Amino acid sequence: MEGAYLIGARRVTGGKAFRGLDAATGAELAGDFPVTTAEDLETACRLADAAFDTYRETAPAARAAFLEAIAEALEARREAIVERCMAESGLPAVRLNGELGRTTGQLRMFAQVVREGDWADVVIDKALPQREPLPRPDLRARRIAVGPVAVFGASNFPLAFSVAGGDTASALAAGCPVVVKAHQAHPGTSLLAGEAIQEAVAKCGLPEGVFSLVYGPGNEIGTALVRHPAIRAVGFTGSRGGGTALMAAAAARPEPIPVYAEMSSVNPVILMPGALAANAEGLAKGYVASLSLFAGQFCTNPGMVFALAGSDVDGFEAAAAEAMGNVAPQVMLTSGILSAYEGGSAKLAGAGSVTEVAQGQPSGERTAGARLFATDAASLMADPALSHEVFGPSSLVVRCADMAELTAAIADMEGQLTATIHAVESDHASLAPLMPLLERKAGRILFNGWPTGVEVCRSMVHGGPFPATSDPRTTSVGAMAIERFLRPVCYQAVPDTLLPAPLKEANPLGLPRRAFD
Amino acid sequence: MEGAYLIGARRVTGGKAFRGLDAATGAELAGDFPVTTAEDLETACRLADAAFDTYRETAPAARAAFLEAIAEALEARREAIVERCMAESGLPAVRLNGELGRTTGQLRMFAQVVREGDWADVVIDKALPQREPLPRPDLRARRIAVGPVAVFGASNFPLAFSVAGGDTASALAAGCPVVVKAHQAHPGTSLLAGEAIQEAVAKCGLPEGVFSLVYGPGNEIGTALVRHPAIRAVGFTGSRGGGTALMAAAAARPEPIPVYAEMSSVNPVILMPGALAANAEGLAKGYVASLSLFAGQFCTNPGMVFALAGSDVDGFEAAAAEAMGNVAPQVMLTSGILSAYEGGSAKLAGAGSVTEVAQGQPSGERTAGARLFATDAASLMADPALSHEVFGPSSLVVRCADMAELTAAIADMEGQLTATIHAVESDHASLAPLMPLLERKAGRILFNGWPTGVEVCRSMVHGGPFPATSDPRTTSVGAMAIERFLRPVCYQAVPDTLLPAPLKEANPLGLPRRAFD
Repeated sequence: MEGAYLIGARRVTGGKAFRGLDAATGAELAGDFPVTTAEDLETACRLADAAFDTYRETAPAARAAFLEAIAEALEARREAIVERCMAESGLPAVRLNGELGRTTGQLRMFAQVVREGDWADVVIDKALPQREPLPRPDLRARRIAVGPVAVFGASNFPLAFSVAGGDTASALAAGCPVVVKAHQAHPGTSLLAGEAIQEAVAKCGLPEGVFSLVYGPGNEIGTALVRHPAIRAVGFTGSRGGGTALMAAAAARPEPIPVYAEMSSVNPVILMPGALAANAEGLAKGYVASLSLFAGQFCTNPGMVFALAGSDVDGFEAAAAEAMGNVAPQVMLTSGILSAYEGGSAKLAGAGSVTEVAQGQPSGERTAGARLFATDAASLMADPALSHEVFGPSSLVVRCADMAELTAAIADMEGQLTATIHAVESDHASLAPLMPLLERKAGRILFNGWPTGVEVCRSMVHGGPFPATSDPRTTSVGAMAIERFLRPVCYQAVPDTLLPAPLKEANPLGLPRRAFD
Repeated sequence: MEGAYLIGARRVTGGKAFRGLDAATGAELAGDFPVTTAEDLETACRLADAAFDTYRETAPAARAAFLEAIAEALEARREAIVERCMAESGLPAVRLNGELGRTTGQLRMFAQVVREGDWADVVIDKALPQREPLPRPDLRARRIAVGPVAVFGASNFPLAFSVAGGDTASALAAGCPVVVKAHQAHPGTSLLAGEAIQEAVAKCGLPEGVFSLVYGPGNEIGTALVRHPAIRAVGFTGSRGGGTALMAAAAARPEPIPVYAEMSSVNPVILMPGALAANAEGLAKGYVASLSLFAGQFCTNPGMVFALAGSDVDGFEAAAAEAMGNVAPQVMLTSGILSAYEGGSAKLAGAGSVTEVAQGQPSGERTAGARLFATDAASLMADPALSHEVFGPSSLVVRCADMAELTAAIADMEGQLTATIHAVESDHASLAPLMPLLERKAGRILFNGWPTGVEVCRSMVHGGPFPATSDPRTTSVGAMAIERFLRPVCYQAVPDTLLPAPLKEANPLGLPRRAFD
């Protein structure tokens, strides 16, 4: 593999370079990946800006075909992508094949969304020339793309949330050119996905600036990208520290821009007494499987479980401890993530009010072992550090005296991506008062399942109040993600010849419209 | 009139107080208006938070009836409101009667929008139990209110953008309790409008915390309000300095919140050669009428006009100068606004590259005279200060060498609320390349009219890129304003009994839904 970055149609090699690392061994992988120069970053942003007016006005059918061409180009590279990604991420083939399917499915869903045209939100207020005291002019609105978007690759979804992932797909669907800053942990995977997009851009005859891919260690290139005046919005999935740094950089620009950062969530799970009485063991097995899935490296990992003292929480904990004994140690995405996991879980283990319930099978030098902790609600509320996210295969069982204390502990939490409830019918009555609180706290409320496994569909909300995300009005998964990259424009008494196609009287694009007299 | 502020159902008098001033004379008006104490501000926010879960789940019909009850209560106070407001704002009765009609019309439009139910954006992905490799659970989403909202009264729309104005109406329509910080310049008008809302809250049997009205000089109370943890979004119309200060305060909270600030715009107007040839004199009259309307105290005041040298811009300027001679001096909203206008227009007059074309009739000690300036595009691009908003009855004519220079000058501008074009058919061809640029720059593009006069309707966008607003994805006028105060929540496999009414299978509220297989 020859390392390179992509500036529009150009492939740049040579210069100061770095190498990808094998997540399992730390060994260097093939390919010298050049660090993007300031000049090339400037060119990428200038090309994106130059492509913007053309690309944003492509007909829905053309934009949809482009998204589908990316999906096809990714599939054509499936073997190479999965192989390289296994090495760079330490994730197994089954997961990465599934993730590639999710990535192409996501692109095809957005193709469908673009074709349907609701995103353009065309609204027409007809002229009322006879109205008293003043006539009303013809007024019509549509939504247009916000401008070039910077997307940051995510460590934990090297395909579905990186170069050709959800942020890129939704920004391209909205009509925004994209400049991706590759995650430093998977340069080869990023290049392969980037080449697929570059190929689709050429195949569809789009301006080259629709897509560029840049690399650079540390924050320098990323910060320069967010500060560039051509960039009008940012998509990011990663740590709270990284996300809040981007939020600050974006807010400090002469012209502030929105940052859509998906950051930090412990995803509380509530085990109701009836559910525990019915199936403590099954719940415990499901819990351990969810928290340890792919080393727990999910934004929606169930990091905290609440149950009432006096319910069958003891049986649940015992069964979970037993299940933990079967959890093999796993390679984590990077050595940095591994050491953060070790530090975070050691801090939990060392907290006076926390007991360690169980560990998974012993970890080796470069793998993470699963860990299960327990505490009580009063201790949790007394020590905010206990509810910080520990990214990896660990979780904390919280015993509550009663529903009132459980409710208080939930009320005390920060914003979350998800809130999960396990309940049977006899539990429902006592849950009714809790539902409004969960709505305030989380973007998704789910019953009798586990929060890992985020469906890509029309109604999905992978979002939530800060610090789960930087903007609770949005989602980074599902069809609604396109709305992040659109803004409304109103046209008053504009002659039909000068109206954009979506608003022309004859509706040549056949978009859905709402009209008001 | 007895001064007071309103904390929920309570009316608070006494304590440290201030008085409203007659805008025309500077004399103190009746009523000692107490400065809201920190304790009462805390109570207002706590009450708003306590009211939130009940208020946000009121049925659309109930919420609509509440908005209509506010409109009725305002109308019942019409005479008192207009009389007091004339004194506090210096605006004439005809304008304030119109503005009250706009305010009640706005509330009634949102009542209709709430009833229609599109705001809830109900989307259902049906369960697919047979899907391979994994079944899909039932997933459904709706949008819910973001939480209590802080609204800041605007100096220049004491009714339509203040206590019961557009921000309050759209936040209440979304299901958000509102705490209004009254504008210091019209405490009596604010109290009368606040009493109307307080009366409607009681009449409709809503929790008292749905509305409070607080007062305080300087930034102290306002900043404390924006920092309060119960407040989840902010609506503001005012100066760039005020808006950016609120943006900074909101971003610096432990949990940042969105600020919808409508701030600063010079609203470029482009006079095309064909339009000037056809009717230079008529355009000049319309221009002067628009820029001097109610002392030019509009966000959409036409602060800058572009025309090509060699077109009939000389005739236009001469006719505008003549029309200026008939513009009487006018009382401005406050002495602070008057002195800012005097400073800003003096700075323009003193700029070496600017000539003063004409003045209106001479101003008195407490009134503003209209002023008309001219420069050329090269000078404008060389000196960014020339394109700063001068709030009041002044405007600047910019001569451009050709369409290329005109385009460059527009490209050089910051974000705008509006961009206006006067054109006849022969101008259209040369305008086509300009349209995409105007879409990037402004929230509303209008032809053959003047930007003052913002229609309250479904398609209106009173928004635009920074610094026109803090968030170009939104509007502060028109039906789409409700979207600022909503966020999506997804419900996965939630039992029907625990689903909120908008999502129950039987659709008891009869809301529009989109369902996907």
